[in-house]
Amino acid sequence: MKIAVLPGDGIGTEIVAEAIKVLEVLDLPFEMESALVGGTAFDAHGHPLPEATLKLAKEADAVLFGAVGDWKYDKLERQFRPEQAILGLRKNLGLFANFRPAICYEQLVSASSLKPELVSGLDILIIRELTGDIYFGQPRGRRIAVDGHFPGAEEAFDTMRYSRPEIERIAHVAFQAARKRNKRVTSVDKNNVLETSQLWKDVMVEIGTQYPDVALDHMLVDNAAMQLVKAPKSFDVIVTGNMFGDILSDEASMLTGSIGMLPSASLNAQNQGLYEPSHGSAPDIAGKGVANPLATILSAAMMLRFSLQQADAADRIESAVQSVLAAGLRTPDIYSAGTTKVGTQQMGDAVVAAI
Amino acid sequence: MKIAVLPGDGIGTEIVAEAIKVLEVLDLPFEMESALVGGTAFDAHGHPLPEATLKLAKEADAVLFGAVGDWKYDKLERQFRPEQAILGLRKNLGLFANFRPAICYEQLVSASSLKPELVSGLDILIIRELTGDIYFGQPRGRRIAVDGHFPGAEEAFDTMRYSRPEIERIAHVAFQAARKRNKRVTSVDKNNVLETSQLWKDVMVEIGTQYPDVALDHMLVDNAAMQLVKAPKSFDVIVTGNMFGDILSDEASMLTGSIGMLPSASLNAQNQGLYEPSHGSAPDIAGKGVANPLATILSAAMMLRFSLQQADAADRIESAVQSVLAAGLRTPDIYSAGTTKVGTQQMGDAVVAAI
Ligand SMILES: CC(C)[C@H](C(=O)O)[C@@H](O)C(=O)O
Ligand SMILES: CC(C)[C@H](C(=O)O)[C@@H](O)C(=O)O
Repeated sequence: MKIAVLPGDGIGTEIVAEAIKVLEVLDLPFEMESALVGGTAFDAHGHPLPEATLKLAKEADAVLFGAVGDWKYDKLERQFRPEQAILGLRKNLGLFANFRPAICYEQLVSASSLKPELVSGLDILIIRELTGDIYFGQPRGRRIAVDGHFPGAEEAFDTMRYSRPEIERIAHVAFQAARKRNKRVTSVDKNNVLETSQLWKDVMVEIGTQYPDVALDHMLVDNAAMQLVKAPKSFDVIVTGNMFGDILSDEASMLTGSIGMLPSASLNAQNQGLYEPSHGSAPDIAGKGVANPLATILSAAMMLRFSLQQADAADRIESAVQSVLAAGLRTPDIYSAGTTKVGTQQMGDAVVAAI
Repeated sequence: MKIAVLPGDGIGTEIVAEAIKVLEVLDLPFEMESALVGGTAFDAHGHPLPEATLKLAKEADAVLFGAVGDWKYDKLERQFRPEQAILGLRKNLGLFANFRPAICYEQLVSASSLKPELVSGLDILIIRELTGDIYFGQPRGRRIAVDGHFPGAEEAFDTMRYSRPEIERIAHVAFQAARKRNKRVTSVDKNNVLETSQLWKDVMVEIGTQYPDVALDHMLVDNAAMQLVKAPKSFDVIVTGNMFGDILSDEASMLTGSIGMLPSASLNAQNQGLYEPSHGSAPDIAGKGVANPLATILSAAMMLRFSLQQADAADRIESAVQSVLAAGLRTPDIYSAGTTKVGTQQMGDAVVAAI
């Protein structure tokens, strides 16, 4: 088995290095090969997703991804910006199913913006469709408007699109995930305004009939943004499109107060997957040795479980993370009085030791 | 001056009745005329926005709107559902500028999901573009896909569009509003993915140069959804498109914990406006006399200020609301131990008495 390791920019290198330490101590039969991605790839090869990096990712069973992005690339044309690498990987590998857990660790409840009783025990799984919607829909561009409010004016446009089979396959992913949890799926859309959402809702209802043991409800995206704040624990699995999922999964992860702890997985139909922390590249703290590596380490655990069929090893990593938290070790982002502040490497070493 | 009064469905009638009491006691030179809208209009006339209602709204200087919607209309074709009335009013009256304040009243801080220190003193103004974007963009519909992931399959699609003048005019609204506040505008978009957002950002930057006294920054919508949870007080004015504004303004109002207190205004280029509470029609509590009328009463105050040039009267309403809160009166949605629970009418009467 082969893992493509793409550390990327900012804190990416530091946090991925700790995840690799953890993977190595498990002594499992896989090889890892690294490549540049994002801004560092642009600097070296003139493109955020060089051909060689894409080839490595395609041939691997799984991709372990750090983070991409830095202010210094903001002025580049969009196609050369670091985040195009992640969009390119999703598209080229067909990674349509994004798993974004929002879990509030008991020891970290106080780090949340929300009152403790609202987040204690929080465990939501957001399943975001990742290769369709307005992210990739053609046509898109700039033109002179021929209708609308200001015919003759310059306008920009994008196309939101979903086809029935695209919705069907993500629906199955959501219902199957709910079966392993509390058997409730909330499908989020904007069917009171959008044609795309009406088809989304129709197909969710249809596929839902194949899962009579799973309760399905529907929520408008604006209401979902509110209910996540008001009563986050009322959700089990949320399934939604690419655009709404981008917004809601970030909102949900921030509710936990410890986004530095949250992994993510993006899978295709063959269970090939890309695994990355839910947080970004944090250029402001890059190179300082203070970034929290746990989200990346937990992403490596998801990788072992979903793409590499090593559920036992995944369990070992997750228990080790629990035990370092229980021992009071904290990187600065999750530090609170009475705990022990450690750096990136110490945290990684502690997880290795706990395994 | 003429006010069109459209109470709508659910609690709409009850809360608008209290706002009318308050307007009447001010003894100002305007007439009010009521009409049906939403589900009740559909029941009576077969359309949620009957011609006569639209005509009344167009001819009025301002529209005082309650709320529309009820589960029982969910099965209707989209064009007949209650919320089409509000979309039709926005479109036909050209109400492109939506003002959604998210204010946390000092006496109600404890009602928020967020820790008190994060919301005490919160005062954000969200300015949402309201007649463009994917809400109204043509073309849209269902068809057989000719490209994409599943050519030949049924698909649905919508078009996100913004023209330069549409963005320019909402930019001016935002910068001018910020001048009267803390002189900071955060423009929210998704320019790392969307063509429409790139034009949005470009135009914001251009118009921003005409307001050198106002600080402009830009935030991606997913990050904005997070920062609202993490540090809501870091914002002053947020300006964004119709779709992102729908989600973020609801998220922000729920952060305050007292959405029953939040008014909104939707204005066109002539300062003709529609004024409505930020909350919905709450069919579950309709007719029980427990709904909070304060958001509607405060919407009437915004109406006096923005469309009817009666700033003094608006001030009087707002002070009266402050004083009933200070006196400890609370409808059930904002009740907490140690305060006095009152119903819809008692609350309206108390505001009238305070004026
Ligand atoms: C970097 C960006 C294109 C990306 C997205 O919008 O999908 C990111 O926000 C994410 O959620 O992974
Ligand atoms: C009812 C619906 C169409 C509307 C919208 O999405 O604009 C509502 O959510 C709002 O924010 O006023």
